[in-house]
Amino acid sequence: MKARVFITLKRGILDPQGQAVLHAIEALGQTGVKEARIGKFIELELTTTDRPAAETQLKMLCETLLANTVIEEYRFELQD
Amino acid sequence: MKARVFITLKRGILDPQGQAVLHAIEALGQTGVKEARIGKFIELELTTTDRPAAETQLKMLCETLLANTVIEEYRFELQD
Repeated sequence: MKARVFITLKRGILDPQGQAVLHAIEALGQTGVKEARIGKFIELELTTTDRPAAETQLKMLCETLLANTVIEEYRFELQD
Repeated sequence: MKARVFITLKRGILDPQGQAVLHAIEALGQTGVKEARIGKFIELELTTTDRPAAETQLKMLCETLLANTVIEEYRFELQD
């Protein structure tokens, strides 16, 4: 089973990396991009085929290891 | 229009950050995770409502700025 985890900064948390990308886009002469926010995208290959167990494990991994829940939020998808 | 860009290392390219995460997962005593690969997740807010124009612009931004196409591949989704 494949898991795809998305980790993004919470709304309201300053994203300097995103601002750097936005400035770089403007420096390229590109208009029409209003906001850029950078997050992490983590692909995990799980051996289990038990979806509820996988969800429990992923939630635990996100809370303890992958995301800093003070400033980040996470979301994941499971694919068989 | 919202764009979500996923940038991942190409298959076959070594991912030390993913390996570090995999080791950390094992160090937590968690089994059942076989592989971890880390990528970037970029959310852009576009002012245009013209989908083909947005796709052209995103392709250009990914090729020139957001992804290193030698070692990374990209994928994006557009949401109205």
